[in-house]
Amino acid sequence: MAFARVARSGLRRSGGTTGNYTSERNTFSERVSDHKSFFPSLEKGCVHNNFTCFSTTRRLNHTSFWSRGIRTTPPYQFPLAERIVESESEHDEPRRPGLEATKPGEKPRVVVLGTGWAACRFLKGLDTKIYDVVCISPRNHMVFTPLLASTCVGTLEFRSVSEPVSRIQSALATSPNSYFYLASCIGLDTNNHEVYCEARSNGGLPHEPYQFKVAYDKLVIAAGAEPLTFGIKGVKENAYFLREVNHAQEIRKKLLLNLMLSENPGISEDEKKRLLHCVIIGGGPTGVEFSGELSDFIMRDVHERYSHVKDYIKVTLIEANEILSSFDVGLRQYATNHLKKSGVQLMRGVVKEVHPKRIILSDGTEVPYGLLVWSTGVGASEFIKSLNLPKSPGGRIGVDQWLRVPSVEDVFALGDCAGFLEHTGKPVLPALAQVAERQGKYLVEVFNRIGKQDGGKAFSGKDMSLGDPFVYKHLGSMASVGRYKALVDLRQSKDAQGISLAGFVSWLIWRSAYLTRVVSWRNRFYVAVNWATTLVFGRDDSRIG
Amino acid sequence: MAFARVARSGLRRSGGTTGNYTSERNTFSERVSDHKSFFPSLEKGCVHNNFTCFSTTRRLNHTSFWSRGIRTTPPYQFPLAERIVESESEHDEPRRPGLEATKPGEKPRVVVLGTGWAACRFLKGLDTKIYDVVCISPRNHMVFTPLLASTCVGTLEFRSVSEPVSRIQSALATSPNSYFYLASCIGLDTNNHEVYCEARSNGGLPHEPYQFKVAYDKLVIAAGAEPLTFGIKGVKENAYFLREVNHAQEIRKKLLLNLMLSENPGISEDEKKRLLHCVIIGGGPTGVEFSGELSDFIMRDVHERYSHVKDYIKVTLIEANEILSSFDVGLRQYATNHLKKSGVQLMRGVVKEVHPKRIILSDGTEVPYGLLVWSTGVGASEFIKSLNLPKSPGGRIGVDQWLRVPSVEDVFALGDCAGFLEHTGKPVLPALAQVAERQGKYLVEVFNRIGKQDGGKAFSGKDMSLGDPFVYKHLGSMASVGRYKALVDLRQSKDAQGISLAGFVSWLIWRSAYLTRVVSWRNRFYVAVNWATTLVFGRDDSRIG
Repeated sequence: MAFARVARSGLRRSGGTTGNYTSERNTFSERVSDHKSFFPSLEKGCVHNNFTCFSTTRRLNHTSFWSRGIRTTPPYQFPLAERIVESESEHDEPRRPGLEATKPGEKPRVVVLGTGWAACRFLKGLDTKIYDVVCISPRNHMVFTPLLASTCVGTLEFRSVSEPVSRIQSALATSPNSYFYLASCIGLDTNNHEVYCEARSNGGLPHEPYQFKVAYDKLVIAAGAEPLTFGIKGVKENAYFLREVNHAQEIRKKLLLNLMLSENPGISEDEKKRLLHCVIIGGGPTGVEFSGELSDFIMRDVHERYSHVKDYIKVTLIEANEILSSFDVGLRQYATNHLKKSGVQLMRGVVKEVHPKRIILSDGTEVPYGLLVWSTGVGASEFIKSLNLPKSPGGRIGVDQWLRVPSVEDVFALGDCAGFLEHTGKPVLPALAQVAERQGKYLVEVFNRIGKQDGGKAFSGKDMSLGDPFVYKHLGSMASVGRYKALVDLRQSKDAQGISLAGFVSWLIWRSAYLTRVVSWRNRFYVAVNWATTLVFGRDDSRIG
Repeated sequence: MAFARVARSGLRRSGGTTGNYTSERNTFSERVSDHKSFFPSLEKGCVHNNFTCFSTTRRLNHTSFWSRGIRTTPPYQFPLAERIVESESEHDEPRRPGLEATKPGEKPRVVVLGTGWAACRFLKGLDTKIYDVVCISPRNHMVFTPLLASTCVGTLEFRSVSEPVSRIQSALATSPNSYFYLASCIGLDTNNHEVYCEARSNGGLPHEPYQFKVAYDKLVIAAGAEPLTFGIKGVKENAYFLREVNHAQEIRKKLLLNLMLSENPGISEDEKKRLLHCVIIGGGPTGVEFSGELSDFIMRDVHERYSHVKDYIKVTLIEANEILSSFDVGLRQYATNHLKKSGVQLMRGVVKEVHPKRIILSDGTEVPYGLLVWSTGVGASEFIKSLNLPKSPGGRIGVDQWLRVPSVEDVFALGDCAGFLEHTGKPVLPALAQVAERQGKYLVEVFNRIGKQDGGKAFSGKDMSLGDPFVYKHLGSMASVGRYKALVDLRQSKDAQGISLAGFVSWLIWRSAYLTRVVSWRNRFYVAVNWATTLVFGRDDSRIG
């Protein structure tokens, strides 16, 4: 079934994204950290080994998108090179906790980085009679991303779109040698088959940051991507992304706060208009679906329940090119008309700077806003960039047609963080849930097959055939545009022939397709219940926190 | 129907609470703020008018309990006396926004402070054909407090226990001269019939703190109470309260984080035990119900889904006297036995100091903890204490038998912030949802009656009879103790005769009673659905944020 989400960056921008981060790197290079590293030998690895770790003179920023809005998340500080040199004398420090390499006779250990579509599909299918599994991720649940936009306005509950990873693969919770670690991966040692991690904590551990290592037999990197900001000033500080459940929570809180603030006595007309101007940057499916949900929320709920300020609220969608550029031209036109009819203002423009209360476009136009949502696609994360592995065009981890990372043993990469190497002759696939899930399914079948042939242990599957290579067949794309309308594009590629439809029937297809794709019966039930209650009672607008 | 929640402080501790805050006041007196006041004339009021406002040399702390865990909430800064004197010359400053007094011919305006049980029952019943209504509160929803403990462990969703105030009284959202303001009240001028407010914002307004005033014809103070900490060092910094939905969210996040952190490699046995030691201070219904929910969660969900650490998690309930002291002795014994059987350790003790990872009791015992929940009842808030109004024993706003505040015109107080004046000869009622709701119902009937006789305007109801005084008849108390067991005590007072039962039937009564009391059909439906899915699928343990 088709359940696509076309990230605009994946193909179109993959060539030019790497350079955009240069200026940010410089910004971070001035900050230093002063804590001790548990892994003083890391530094050597950077110099002469086949060992991948970060540039140690800058602060790693790969958690910043994840933690947007959670002020309690401690920013990750990477140890300064100098500190490591200083601490060389402390090499014999007793504490370096971790999981040691598996012994002969023990099950091989698969380490999975990430809990997104690719990782979770892989985890779900893994034969835990053959393998022990360790999953490492800064969040303990998978997010059903296609429905995330609906949670911001209360159509769905936050928990209806999140699925605990231990429900997806119960061995993580129950099997004696399988674990889930709430941590970020901060480095790899592909020679020694080890990953280095830092626990995501808030002061509760004996010493922090709390770092540990995990030895693997096979490593599956499915750590995802980061929103693209193109180095534009002020985006990270002022805009909200829409990639995680807590992003949706923050957007919801801001929207409801602005609605209530604008009712305060003495707020000027201009200020009301600004507070209630919701601006979305990026006309991909996420941006369009969020605009549609917002206009639904305004038409149905704001008009009824914030009637003092209902005439001030406006939604503007700003896109540099065409909205929904991956869809059929007829569908695009339909979406454009429908959004306009729903009150969404479509604007062509390129953002130059973002200030706390206004955006400046490249033609000098100033756009005041109260809520700014940034959804211009995703690109390689700082973590992925920092790894000393072969890269695909666009800076993702380069893989061959079996999703293996060549030149290192037992390392696989998939999902938004991986792309075919140039020499495979295949294009880098778009950053879609559909792609990620299909790759997870493919790879876990490979793993189960080689595991049965005793190829699960480190270095042991070297000469084993992995079977057919991974081939991606696009099943189509869908996007809702609000008010019981959606687009369904079943063509295999942008230029192919095929069925495409728009309207109420598409909306029914969209809802049913997603409902069947929701991971668990519990959440399937909750999504259905949420939809029904929203229809009957309207959306909930308690602002919690 | 009986749906009582006995706050232990209400009666037992009412005599001695005021003094406990003295030391805290001093702590705050050193902090100063430097923003301009919109109300320079406030200061004069403090000196020679019948005008109630705060001591202006200390920082007001009445929002600290509300904002526990929300680091984004800006702390409220009260203007320094000196600043006000300096700005006297700016008296003619044009901006002093607000709602002016109603004119003849306009509907009288009732201003309600708070969105708790008392305020919401009052709002619900108000005849908005007679009155305009303005509700001022730092939260836009009512919390169904008796079920709050269940949300911490995922038995119920957070939104199932919160009800937006605009759904309780739709005039707040739709009527042209009725409003809900997300703000804290910071002072009253009973002579001029005005309240002073500060918007709860996060940097989105033109200048902050954003203050405004609202003129009233009648004022209903239902601003609630604050958790009692008895001046014990470290409570506010390290313990979680359980009064608001965001408190429950924070407790849930901490509990799940500790479960995951304790799985990290290299954590010592002692450290695991500490991280997974949940300590509850206070054996009132909140403490007991939370302990019961926790032990349920541990027995059913932790054992199944955190099996690596399941043997380390423990719950300890510490109480200085008897648990559930307001209940029948047989029920108390039943609760004690049941809790013990469920693995809850009951401990007699008085807390002396609270440190980040351990509590010290008055006998010197050290209790290491990973999660600390504080539920030792409530007392008068800093805001209530700062008001220059007559006080009841225990520091609440003193009212007569018609819930009027004597000596000032048109001011009423009810719920946890109000108590009968000594000369009425009646005891201060306990801080119960049951009391608050009954008072709200009584007062709104009085208001609707005098409003029909044109007594709604300021000073106009002076000589009007308010009818029968408020008489409280206790309908009984209930508390669940976990694992399908609860207590129901239908005696009218502690020493009266009457029915009391414990066990599964009581649990059924408890659930049905609360289900029928949940405010809206939407939430009634959701609570039932949550209970059913928890039974079928177990509790959700995604850790969001």
